[in-house]
Amino acid sequence: MSAELRAALTAELGAGVVVTDADVLATNARDEAHFCPAGVPAALVRARSTADVVATLRIAGRYGVPVVPQGARTGLSGGANAVDGCILLSLTRMARIVEVDAGERIAVVQPGVVNAELSRVVAEQGLFYAPDPASWESSTIGGNVATNAGGLCCVKYGVTGDKVRALEVVLADGSVLRTGRRTAKGVAGYDLTHLFVGSEGTLGVITEITVALDPAPAPALTAAATFSDVADACHVVDAYMAAGARPSLLELMDGPTIAVVSAYRDLGFPAGTGALLLVSSDDPDRAAADLAAFAEVCARYDATEVVVAEDAAEADLLIEARRLVGPAHEPLGASLVDDVCVPRRALARFVQGVAAIGARHDVLVTCAGHAGDGNMHPGVVFDPADPAAAARAQQAFEEIMGLGLELGGTITGEHGIGTLKASWLARELGPVSLAAHRRIKDAFDPDGLLNPGKVL
Amino acid sequence: MSAELRAALTAELGAGVVVTDADVLATNARDEAHFCPAGVPAALVRARSTADVVATLRIAGRYGVPVVPQGARTGLSGGANAVDGCILLSLTRMARIVEVDAGERIAVVQPGVVNAELSRVVAEQGLFYAPDPASWESSTIGGNVATNAGGLCCVKYGVTGDKVRALEVVLADGSVLRTGRRTAKGVAGYDLTHLFVGSEGTLGVITEITVALDPAPAPALTAAATFSDVADACHVVDAYMAAGARPSLLELMDGPTIAVVSAYRDLGFPAGTGALLLVSSDDPDRAAADLAAFAEVCARYDATEVVVAEDAAEADLLIEARRLVGPAHEPLGASLVDDVCVPRRALARFVQGVAAIGARHDVLVTCAGHAGDGNMHPGVVFDPADPAAAARAQQAFEEIMGLGLELGGTITGEHGIGTLKASWLARELGPVSLAAHRRIKDAFDPDGLLNPGKVL
Repeated sequence: MSAELRAALTAELGAGVVVTDADVLATNARDEAHFCPAGVPAALVRARSTADVVATLRIAGRYGVPVVPQGARTGLSGGANAVDGCILLSLTRMARIVEVDAGERIAVVQPGVVNAELSRVVAEQGLFYAPDPASWESSTIGGNVATNAGGLCCVKYGVTGDKVRALEVVLADGSVLRTGRRTAKGVAGYDLTHLFVGSEGTLGVITEITVALDPAPAPALTAAATFSDVADACHVVDAYMAAGARPSLLELMDGPTIAVVSAYRDLGFPAGTGALLLVSSDDPDRAAADLAAFAEVCARYDATEVVVAEDAAEADLLIEARRLVGPAHEPLGASLVDDVCVPRRALARFVQGVAAIGARHDVLVTCAGHAGDGNMHPGVVFDPADPAAAARAQQAFEEIMGLGLELGGTITGEHGIGTLKASWLARELGPVSLAAHRRIKDAFDPDGLLNPGKVL
Repeated sequence: MSAELRAALTAELGAGVVVTDADVLATNARDEAHFCPAGVPAALVRARSTADVVATLRIAGRYGVPVVPQGARTGLSGGANAVDGCILLSLTRMARIVEVDAGERIAVVQPGVVNAELSRVVAEQGLFYAPDPASWESSTIGGNVATNAGGLCCVKYGVTGDKVRALEVVLADGSVLRTGRRTAKGVAGYDLTHLFVGSEGTLGVITEITVALDPAPAPALTAAATFSDVADACHVVDAYMAAGARPSLLELMDGPTIAVVSAYRDLGFPAGTGALLLVSSDDPDRAAADLAAFAEVCARYDATEVVVAEDAAEADLLIEARRLVGPAHEPLGASLVDDVCVPRRALARFVQGVAAIGARHDVLVTCAGHAGDGNMHPGVVFDPADPAAAARAQQAFEEIMGLGLELGGTITGEHGIGTLKASWLARELGPVSLAAHRRIKDAFDPDGLLNPGKVL
């Protein structure tokens, strides 16, 4: 069957678009998640246009072959992983910024545009594309939309979905759906746009995105605070936000995270530092007041030190600690990165609970994340060559999700379900919601060919 | 059949909940829209609880009887109008504010809570519930969510749906669905929450709403500007917003609107005033600078006068002109209020086009609205006792929607489709989107009992 499928794809799309080389297929068969199975794809289509996507879905339907849409494959949940015999449908060649309309504060982009590229282009026009996942220098807007990606500035500006106004989506039958609107408001019909946002390629293939832009914010001021006890840092986050703060960034690193970063590069943290908070404010004219208020809350909760950056260079230096979290983990082996979001008042219990889970399973768990949103990324570090350690890591990873649900949170704040958390979704959603999900999936993909095994 | 249905409802819910008096039914059979048919309902259920809603939908399913959910019936599109033999399901008795969580900045409310009541209660805790439809003193949060209502402060704070985090919804089969999350972020599964927002009771009955709250804004400063030519006022809106302004209110009234308001109450506008712009800024520390920038743009576009309010009382006086638009129209007969949203740069063409349509059909058309969002409410004034005038008004109303679509806009920015614009929805959406809408409707309401004839 695969030979026939490949021939049909190549006949329709051309050899330059359809890749069947086994090595290339293997290289493209997975994203950056651990413990997520990846099958052997039959072909990779590197679509150049909506027409290519339509042709691919029509052929897939004719042969009853699954289609796995892919962006830059930077995901952490296996959402872009191949299933056996599938067509990998890469959108990365559709990378054109179609339009930036500064008056309406919108941009229209193809799905393969890299987040950083869009951010740079609109910044040149005094505008701001807010969503900034950690992968922003390589991940695509299409992938960001398909996973409803978050980032550091969500705490003030919201997540990817909050900025999506309209989509072009190719449906399973090859028809081309346009959702949403270009205007600031619009309530004509159901909100199909946000049904596709975060649906991880299981309902259709996104081929064009209209995003809302914000006016460029003022340059941010930044402060950092250290604590002996991570619980104090968590209480600062809760108290500061509850008092009505609007920081443009509010990040937390716990003691183990600081130790890992310090081993990678000495940034001058005293040994035994229990937690680091980073906060920025880009409110024009009152950022200094915001940071002073933050420092005051920190003092109330026994901060060991509070440093306010004098300028942008110093702010970058403070934030570098946060940026190094990913690279600093790389030499340690594999890291299973969780993505639990809890109510802010449960943050201390969550971070302490995560540490207890790590201790119980004898694995190193670091805990850093977007504390202002209650969205933390516990990283379970393990040696992938040691099956016993990997099993303990996986057990810890699962218990962390359970803890998040117990505390009134969600198993995923921004990374999505993919295959990694598909078995946990039912637990979070319950049977009525799961049945509603299946009805929607059936309505849009009756043959179950779009990214099967993901989400549901 | 109706007798049997009424007996079943009364047996299950009690006589205090089920109303069958013909006069009461007639009084409750419609919302505030013109030209929208309303049928004769079989019964009115005044639900006290989710359990009452479940029982009602189960009985409706058993008898195959349509259900029309209702809030305060302040809608302008016929979305709450009865169909023959239906059960009117009023949610106004479910009016409890379940919880205000100041730390998490959320509130959990029943659907019958009046918008103004929620706004007042959260304000006491230093918080802000932003969505403020003109009906806010009487309309309910449930109705606001079902229609995705807008308002004056959308231009800065977004529409109702932007603030909805989670819903409890009773589905057609009586099962109780919980969507969304309490946390700031969450991407577990499809975004069912926003599928129900704005679905006008056609997919389920909303029985609980979790909304996000904002920190209370600073007191706003307000300015007003008058123009000889309405096109100049429109250009100011476009230029001011394109320069990156973030007003908390930006309203436009055209010459005919000012004339109608002046006839109702003399606010000192010189005869022949062509347009009035109202702008507010609640940015702490820079509201005065925002208004100065606004005044500068106004001067560039030949404003005849710019007044900046010295204090809150003076600001109220300026905004009073806008508040009087509704009352001032009442003595004139009926007003068919349109709700087109266009790109801001098309605002001048839209407002001038609306005037031309009025002239062509010999009807008075006033044009006021949320100019900062491009969302205008042309009001076609007519004598409902004069069938020829009513027909001309209806023709003008339709042409205004056509003009909005031509200019890249939508037929409804915030009022919804109801029955009033159901025939226009297909024109805006096109066949692929319409088919997708029907698949979703079938997935959630296979027997077509939920608010039939509305939206689709």
